[in-house]
Amino acid sequence: MKRQGSQTVMFSQPVGILATASVVGKKEGEGPIGKMFDMVETDPFFGTKSWEKAESKFATTAVDICAKKSCMPMDSFDYIIAGDLLNQSTGSIYGLRNTNRPYLGIFGACSAMGEGMSIASMLIDGGFANNIIVAASSHFCSAEKQFRFPLEFGSQRTPTSSWTVTGAAAVALTTSQSDVVITAATTGKMVDMQIKDANNMGAAMAPAAADTIVAHLKDTNRSPKYYDAIITGDLGYIGSQLLLQTTAKMGYDISAIHKDCGIEIFDKNTQNTYAGGSGCACSGVTFSAYFYEQLRIGKLSKILFVPTGALMSPTSIQQGESIPSIAHAVAIERCAA
Amino acid sequence: MKRQGSQTVMFSQPVGILATASVVGKKEGEGPIGKMFDMVETDPFFGTKSWEKAESKFATTAVDICAKKSCMPMDSFDYIIAGDLLNQSTGSIYGLRNTNRPYLGIFGACSAMGEGMSIASMLIDGGFANNIIVAASSHFCSAEKQFRFPLEFGSQRTPTSSWTVTGAAAVALTTSQSDVVITAATTGKMVDMQIKDANNMGAAMAPAAADTIVAHLKDTNRSPKYYDAIITGDLGYIGSQLLLQTTAKMGYDISAIHKDCGIEIFDKNTQNTYAGGSGCACSGVTFSAYFYEQLRIGKLSKILFVPTGALMSPTSIQQGESIPSIAHAVAIERCAA
Repeated sequence: MKRQGSQTVMFSQPVGILATASVVGKKEGEGPIGKMFDMVETDPFFGTKSWEKAESKFATTAVDICAKKSCMPMDSFDYIIAGDLLNQSTGSIYGLRNTNRPYLGIFGACSAMGEGMSIASMLIDGGFANNIIVAASSHFCSAEKQFRFPLEFGSQRTPTSSWTVTGAAAVALTTSQSDVVITAATTGKMVDMQIKDANNMGAAMAPAAADTIVAHLKDTNRSPKYYDAIITGDLGYIGSQLLLQTTAKMGYDISAIHKDCGIEIFDKNTQNTYAGGSGCACSGVTFSAYFYEQLRIGKLSKILFVPTGALMSPTSIQQGESIPSIAHAVAIERCAA
Repeated sequence: MKRQGSQTVMFSQPVGILATASVVGKKEGEGPIGKMFDMVETDPFFGTKSWEKAESKFATTAVDICAKKSCMPMDSFDYIIAGDLLNQSTGSIYGLRNTNRPYLGIFGACSAMGEGMSIASMLIDGGFANNIIVAASSHFCSAEKQFRFPLEFGSQRTPTSSWTVTGAAAVALTTSQSDVVITAATTGKMVDMQIKDANNMGAAMAPAAADTIVAHLKDTNRSPKYYDAIITGDLGYIGSQLLLQTTAKMGYDISAIHKDCGIEIFDKNTQNTYAGGSGCACSGVTFSAYFYEQLRIGKLSKILFVPTGALMSPTSIQQGESIPSIAHAVAIERCAA
């Protein structure tokens, strides 16, 4: 039986990561890990006529680069699994409609990369696929327009607000041998602690992240020390503090090894991103460019990657609803040489 | 190897259908299969203050009924997989946030039930789950408001337009023995034939349905005669005609056995639904209440169930984009006694 505990599956054959790809916007390219991305596109329209079309082009480009870095033609991929934040997932759908591959659309808000890597790993380990590309995208301008205010309005941002990352990430998974492998996946439950402030998504998502991380540690009977790093998606500064407090109360001190992609991707002092980065691309590109590389070169050997998602819509917020959240954890390890 | 051909997986142990549930609105209850639904709710608000909250309550109710009909407590389900049409999938998310189960959100527009049943079957056959509930919902009023015009505007409908089904369906899948089982799944590719009329989704989706059905028949080396019925999701009258023409041109005559849930659910002559029913719930509730029952009692013994999805958003249509579409096929068979 591959299932372990209530939410975790362990893979009998670790699922290999064949390649990752990251394509980002100008601001992300100027950040602390800016030099590590595969491509920085400085035009927010990416040569198209709208931010939505630009987001789609980020997704197209990331998937194309990922296939190239995998040294495989697109038709070697048995599935593409992708998601984003736009209404009816138009970022992924219009970006990937010409791939001509069996397509599974997902929605987990900014947890998309975690959900996609989990499903892909199960499909590969279950014998249903040899190779799968997982992709996730977001765009600051399309997200502001859809979730907040028109950019032209120049609204003042709250200190708890985060900055949606512009870009897309793609990760190619495989049955073949690989330096870096996925060994387990813990699928999150929705957690709703009645946070209603859509400008404080870190606070809404922290309890979901804590719930999934603790479930993973309990299911696998591991201490946090098993991992070199536990890396959340886009909790940012405020959500990360809440996460550490919450996990500590639940009996797990992860403070020494916790990292957050929303904190890593921007410079707090010079980039005015307040609570940090967010968006489906935030965890996607930070993992693809930075943490995957650290695993590949041996600076990290075991990580728990935990993309986080705030599952509200503008309509649900306008109707007075709170923000259900979710986090999906994927254990990723470097194979001993 | 469980994979067969380029898009199809066959299950080594057929995945059992434990129970199905269907909850619909007043109009659906008055239709030709109205007496077969588990519950008909005549209040379009379902006792809530908005159509979106009502849609969520349809999803909650369908999943609860499905668990009850399965004779299993909710925590026996290893995953819930669900999707809908609303922005950021709020129908499923707010409806299922209190289930306390590992949750995988999907987006395939009205193909949600097909995508969900395919993923769930792979997770079960792969050994990652014993029991999974798949759910899909839609609501005429929330869909009109989001995709078309305010209801109060009283806009005239085009003859090619379809009527979004109000309701939700849930299907419980299991490793255990069952009368009715899923034997194969063919995951669709996105197909975009440059149809731009969002009031003619049948025409947009027909090529995707043809593509998936023919891929399934080729992958499995089966003739259409293998099945008693090939049942599309919501092509309606216009899309169904196009499907039959398209598959015939591709060398497969399926006219004798083709059915469409969008045609079955409403009465063409008395219910003014023009092209037929549509929405994630359309294929979901029609399968759950009608076709599943026909399999159970032996009136059908082998069907190919092919939910269809039109993957546009109001924004993409406003920006002049065409409508990419997708269809996911699931082979469902009655076990010989």
